[in-house]
Amino acid sequence: MMYKKVDGETVKSLEAISGKDFVFYDEENLQLYSKDYTENLSFCPEVIVKPVSSAEISEILKLANEKSIPVVPRGGGTGLSGGALPLYGGICISMERFNRILDIDEENFQATVEPGVITQIFQEKCEELRLYYPPDPASRGSSFLGGNLAECSGGPRAVKYGVTKDYVLGLEVVLPTGEIINTGAKVLKNVSGYNLTQLLIGSEGTLGIITKIFFKLIPLPKFKKVILVAFHSVEDCARTVSRIFRSGITPSALELMERSAIKAAENQLGKKFPNTDAEAQLLIEVDGNYEDTLDKDIESIAGTVTENGAYDIILAEDNQKMNELWALRRCIGEAVKSISEYKEEDTVVPRARIPELIKGVKSISEKYGITTICYGHAGDGNVHVNILKDKMNEEQWTENLDTAIREIFVHTVSLGGTISGEHGIGYSQKAYLPLALSENELTLMKNIKKTLDPNNIMNPGKIFID
Amino acid sequence: MMYKKVDGETVKSLEAISGKDFVFYDEENLQLYSKDYTENLSFCPEVIVKPVSSAEISEILKLANEKSIPVVPRGGGTGLSGGALPLYGGICISMERFNRILDIDEENFQATVEPGVITQIFQEKCEELRLYYPPDPASRGSSFLGGNLAECSGGPRAVKYGVTKDYVLGLEVVLPTGEIINTGAKVLKNVSGYNLTQLLIGSEGTLGIITKIFFKLIPLPKFKKVILVAFHSVEDCARTVSRIFRSGITPSALELMERSAIKAAENQLGKKFPNTDAEAQLLIEVDGNYEDTLDKDIESIAGTVTENGAYDIILAEDNQKMNELWALRRCIGEAVKSISEYKEEDTVVPRARIPELIKGVKSISEKYGITTICYGHAGDGNVHVNILKDKMNEEQWTENLDTAIREIFVHTVSLGGTISGEHGIGYSQKAYLPLALSENELTLMKNIKKTLDPNNIMNPGKIFID
Repeated sequence: MMYKKVDGETVKSLEAISGKDFVFYDEENLQLYSKDYTENLSFCPEVIVKPVSSAEISEILKLANEKSIPVVPRGGGTGLSGGALPLYGGICISMERFNRILDIDEENFQATVEPGVITQIFQEKCEELRLYYPPDPASRGSSFLGGNLAECSGGPRAVKYGVTKDYVLGLEVVLPTGEIINTGAKVLKNVSGYNLTQLLIGSEGTLGIITKIFFKLIPLPKFKKVILVAFHSVEDCARTVSRIFRSGITPSALELMERSAIKAAENQLGKKFPNTDAEAQLLIEVDGNYEDTLDKDIESIAGTVTENGAYDIILAEDNQKMNELWALRRCIGEAVKSISEYKEEDTVVPRARIPELIKGVKSISEKYGITTICYGHAGDGNVHVNILKDKMNEEQWTENLDTAIREIFVHTVSLGGTISGEHGIGYSQKAYLPLALSENELTLMKNIKKTLDPNNIMNPGKIFID
Repeated sequence: MMYKKVDGETVKSLEAISGKDFVFYDEENLQLYSKDYTENLSFCPEVIVKPVSSAEISEILKLANEKSIPVVPRGGGTGLSGGALPLYGGICISMERFNRILDIDEENFQATVEPGVITQIFQEKCEELRLYYPPDPASRGSSFLGGNLAECSGGPRAVKYGVTKDYVLGLEVVLPTGEIINTGAKVLKNVSGYNLTQLLIGSEGTLGIITKIFFKLIPLPKFKKVILVAFHSVEDCARTVSRIFRSGITPSALELMERSAIKAAENQLGKKFPNTDAEAQLLIEVDGNYEDTLDKDIESIAGTVTENGAYDIILAEDNQKMNELWALRRCIGEAVKSISEYKEEDTVVPRARIPELIKGVKSISEKYGITTICYGHAGDGNVHVNILKDKMNEEQWTENLDTAIREIFVHTVSLGGTISGEHGIGYSQKAYLPLALSENELTLMKNIKKTLDPNNIMNPGKIFID
């Protein structure tokens, strides 16, 4: 790709737009903005700008578009597919100053928020008002809402409540060519022109920069109950997942953890959990407005899991126990990654196919002598497969990793699934997207990208192979 | 627009593609396919083809694209914005032979369906298996699922369960240039490339022809309860809507009916209902898996409505009573339209703004001496405004109608709303879309349209002013 470098004149223009205090190009900052949470990758921007308004972003994009300088929007930097990495240098637009919750409209169950608000801060603000914003990515403590939209984040509650896209009514967006548009409206249903909102969500910063979000909220459920269920076999455990839904109950979370995932979490937390000799466990949560019906739900689920081979069920009797069980689940991501060099995959299949998915993953692992740890949001068929280098030597790792991933994804797609449920394609998965999409589908997407971003300045090198 | 006419050669080609038995150009058929349910409009196609496979549709579109002949896809013909009207003649592709439910996957709560299946047939098939497909347009007895997708249909259950788009996981689509693509996957979450599924849904047949639908289903709730609540004032009634949600309960339906709407329904059904002297009534349904919690919900709602000025509450004690109340609500659409010449609008606002919406509509009605009847899905802020010619003379009607509609829409948009919640823009609303969308937004949509349909053959003259 033929991009222009950021020169002194460009820096001056950026300073004129956002102010000298908000333009950075010292080595320390360039390093700081060169990474996200995706494995061990680093790509330095040439300059970082921290604008505060859509008008500023519009000017920056017009400048970049005119000069053919790549632009990468950046949220909390917690992405897992390299979406915020400036592959071609250029301008990093950090959204950190877009950090205001502009309005929480209790009457209408809506909120107007800037994209630089930290997910957890927004969640808690809503809950104070007995309102609920269910999307709950593992990185909620530092991820930005704008990044959640860019990658269409999910998390454990998605199984009952849906993912980020299901809570967005509309957006303010600056297009790559500088126009500021609004999509959607503050309404729950809308067939007034094409659904640009959903085209933008999950587009990983390649079609424009989101500068304002109109959220839908729901009433906060009053009660929840959590159980942890132990199985002697991964297959029994995985098969049980769809049986629970078939019984008519939709849990508010249904998480699967392999033995090795729980072991890693125990090490990380320095703490023992019961039944950690179980080959696999399910963490199951139900929620609702009536405590006694939750008891009935739990009773019914207990029946289903027992019929399907569970040998122990632990009920969290109080909030503290509930938090302990969730802490176990929540730390798995980091715990697994601390074992060794790794590559994380984000497979998703129809939920009844999880047993086949995991079986296939394990057989591919064995074939190539690699270690895989599976865990994740089994309720919606989304299994995170962590591939660990562990004791493998460098040569074997380099030789086998790509082939093994390809086989895992081919298997996933053959089950009706796809290669990313909630982490996105970004940089780290783009080589594999042709395993899930046909040439015609990719061409159409690239043509849409070209329509919005004729000079390909917005987060280039993401999603599609160049 | 410079389209080619359908000549004898084209007819022969169509017959070669779909067979002589499935190509029609006799006057009777052309008339039959010239209308939908939108007011009193009629535009004849030049030829009707009834293909049976995506391969046939691909060939037809390639032919039309090459020859610059407009193509209009047609479902059940029950649209309310003229989406299926062949404004420029050309080829009508009737989807009636795509009428197979290919698979209902009970384990995964999914279904694979052709777009020519009638909505109600699919709903009932799901319910037999204790599965639930909630979208429920008034025309469900004859509308096609493909048409429901094209217009993103809603209906009364949308308030709790969402609209058509919320149940579509993926599509098979033939693009205007003839390529057959798949969008999405059989999964509940997906960030693997742009969300083409949601770009297609609600695009009103202007971006391609849907040939297969992958649906998500949910467990069928076991119980429901229905009440009918009478108010002395429309304002009290409208204000109560958001108060119910604020109390923490999400009804499975919350419908508002003005006095004149109920009167029209009574006439239509030849039957009297209680409290028809009420200025406005709410039909409220709750559903769930536990009967006793529904009783508690109803009790809580009864408290809320009473606090807000309701003077009578009728509980449907059994299924028959429940069906009677729903029959009242369901026949309003046709009942109101049978009064006189009319134009129906499909306004939608944040639900707490409904009192202001209705007040504005009434004040605009008075200003222009027109009759309006308001009813609809108040729970999600979607109020159908029927403008009746009634006793107005032709001259006044012609003179005032357009101005009054514009004022109603400007008012709707000023409340954070938009001009169509579930009927679409199609032909009958396109003149008003610029009241809701900016020039930049419209240009972007038109550019996307051009990217997919460079020769503008797919359902031309819809959504956008030419």
